[in-house]
Amino acid sequence: MSVTAPNGFRAAGVSAGLKPDGARDVAVVVNDGPSRAAAAVFTRNRVKAAPVLWSQQVAAGGRVRAVVLNAGGANACTGPAGFQDAHATAEHVAAAMEDSAGEILVCSTGLIGERLPMPALLDGAGRAVESAARDGGPDAADAIRTTDTVAKISFKRGSGYTIGGMAKGAGMLAPELATMLCVVTTDADLTAAQCDSLLRAATRRTFDRVDSDGCASTNDTVVLMASGASGTAPEEAEFGALLTEVCDDLARQLVADAEGSTKSIAVEVVGAASEDDAVEAARAVARSTLFKCAVYGEDPNWGRALAAVGTTRAVFEPDEVNLAVNGVWVCRRGAVGDDRSKVDLSGRDVTVTVDLAAGSEAATVWTNDLTTAYVHENSAYSS
Amino acid sequence: MSVTAPNGFRAAGVSAGLKPDGARDVAVVVNDGPSRAAAAVFTRNRVKAAPVLWSQQVAAGGRVRAVVLNAGGANACTGPAGFQDAHATAEHVAAAMEDSAGEILVCSTGLIGERLPMPALLDGAGRAVESAARDGGPDAADAIRTTDTVAKISFKRGSGYTIGGMAKGAGMLAPELATMLCVVTTDADLTAAQCDSLLRAATRRTFDRVDSDGCASTNDTVVLMASGASGTAPEEAEFGALLTEVCDDLARQLVADAEGSTKSIAVEVVGAASEDDAVEAARAVARSTLFKCAVYGEDPNWGRALAAVGTTRAVFEPDEVNLAVNGVWVCRRGAVGDDRSKVDLSGRDVTVTVDLAAGSEAATVWTNDLTTAYVHENSAYSS
Repeated sequence: MSVTAPNGFRAAGVSAGLKPDGARDVAVVVNDGPSRAAAAVFTRNRVKAAPVLWSQQVAAGGRVRAVVLNAGGANACTGPAGFQDAHATAEHVAAAMEDSAGEILVCSTGLIGERLPMPALLDGAGRAVESAARDGGPDAADAIRTTDTVAKISFKRGSGYTIGGMAKGAGMLAPELATMLCVVTTDADLTAAQCDSLLRAATRRTFDRVDSDGCASTNDTVVLMASGASGTAPEEAEFGALLTEVCDDLARQLVADAEGSTKSIAVEVVGAASEDDAVEAARAVARSTLFKCAVYGEDPNWGRALAAVGTTRAVFEPDEVNLAVNGVWVCRRGAVGDDRSKVDLSGRDVTVTVDLAAGSEAATVWTNDLTTAYVHENSAYSS
Repeated sequence: MSVTAPNGFRAAGVSAGLKPDGARDVAVVVNDGPSRAAAAVFTRNRVKAAPVLWSQQVAAGGRVRAVVLNAGGANACTGPAGFQDAHATAEHVAAAMEDSAGEILVCSTGLIGERLPMPALLDGAGRAVESAARDGGPDAADAIRTTDTVAKISFKRGSGYTIGGMAKGAGMLAPELATMLCVVTTDADLTAAQCDSLLRAATRRTFDRVDSDGCASTNDTVVLMASGASGTAPEEAEFGALLTEVCDDLARQLVADAEGSTKSIAVEVVGAASEDDAVEAARAVARSTLFKCAVYGEDPNWGRALAAVGTTRAVFEPDEVNLAVNGVWVCRRGAVGDDRSKVDLSGRDVTVTVDLAAGSEAATVWTNDLTTAYVHENSAYSS
């Protein structure tokens, strides 16, 4: 289902020869309307890839006809020539649809610091537009994979409309960022302003709270396109909740497939004086390489988590904080609590709960363990 | 030589049974004067181990008679009982020397969240005081090792005085912190105020700029003790320079022996608008797990380094920055530069130079690669 679940959208994924193994590597998602309302959020990294610089201009117009995405090259740190490549890709796709390049979003993922093989890419993009079809969602989701072992798709039905989505991203999932490439579609009838506010609200609590390895990508993009094909102008609260569910679903799929991971870790901070405090403390734990190694070793080494919390500015007293691993309160009032041997870390899902004992706010950040396979994957291959 | 190189100091390292293999695990460094001037810097982690809480009070007095150190247990997150343990250790050592506990510094390293085996520790501390001798420096340096594969010692001769030092710390080397346990001794005649300002200046550019794995310890302590036994009141500039050399030497030994590391990486930022900018940018690169994995794989993946710089607030224009790996300028003006295949990463020492092209300030942060052995070491064992 994916991005073609809502009416008004066609998609395709083709092989353009950018991946050495000949797998699909170029995707398009086309919005046939009647509306083209759209919004996007991008990486906050100051080193932005050329397609991000291009797509920011497109998104500012509030209308998107199509998104063209490629794996096999990030087109980042490629200078003015790289920007021309992103522009040329948009022009090529626009020409194939007899439309305006100013409404074509471009997304790229892969190695930083290399130019894209433009003839192959343009040829693939042209073929993708030609073959874009109502059942093309799965192929598109497949084409944007890099080290992702599975395609990530999601969809939800609302009252008279549908939301669909696809995402890629298995490493370099980043703090405080849109994180990875994600296309969300809906046949609901929304204005561009609604798309913008609803997408920002949904990503703030989902993709922005995934922190796989603390590294911020140059290419992260999340776009929402609304075709209006259902004829339904949705109730905003319901639509926002469903959109958040789709984003949350995709975000968790990213964590579940994070490079080399064996555990999905929910770092849940409760009893915080503010939501910002909760996020800051949760993110600090999610970024502790020592703690993440311990979880990989199925060792409930709560001291490493508490040491991470101690580096933050969150309001808490060290001798008041409590900490549970998978429901066992191994740390009470900053000191040794229940028997750590009672903690069962054999499953994939791990929940760390930090009670700051300083208020009633809470937040959860999703991460994964740090494994020998992650190191292997990121040392043996350029990506 | 180590901490007993300067006159006026005795030291010892004994086995108290805290390490399961029976190796030395308790050390003392005793200052026999005539002066007891001293200063110390501690972890900035808000979750401070009991010995840090104790030793902060001692150091505030500006006089230290002896330091007692143990491996095999951090005595962190142990609550009021843990603080009593640290206090009792100081009292025991003081009694053995017929001196005041208020001038006994206590340092611990090892697993967080477990009480120390006090009878064994006190017995060991007593024997250490008894056997403390002018040639005991190497044994003391050996006793404070945890996952350190070698003891770290250093000494320098000044004009009429000597500075000696020992350190431990192989993981959890931390940002913006004193980092690890380190005892520096000198027979120069200094006031406590001089010790304090000189030690802060020296650690700011050495230990504070070692960032092995981005994790901040609960126990980091660096202490400087001045016996005055040489009778020489040193010229401050010369002493400060030598002290910085000793700290730099020890800091680099820590990086060279960092857990599981195969590369020592100097992240050198030049052309910065301010020294703070240079440190912030260098630290961001030093904390990029993706970049550190790439170095382990001997892959000059400069895009990952540049992406890390992009997350900082340092003044720079993405299309002006230059980056070299081991002297090869693989990135020029934010885009592809010289041929990356010219970079030789086969040696242990790696230098990454980031030119922000925004000013004339510079700073270097020392780190190491992220390896499968690091993950193994920190997942297979509690520490």
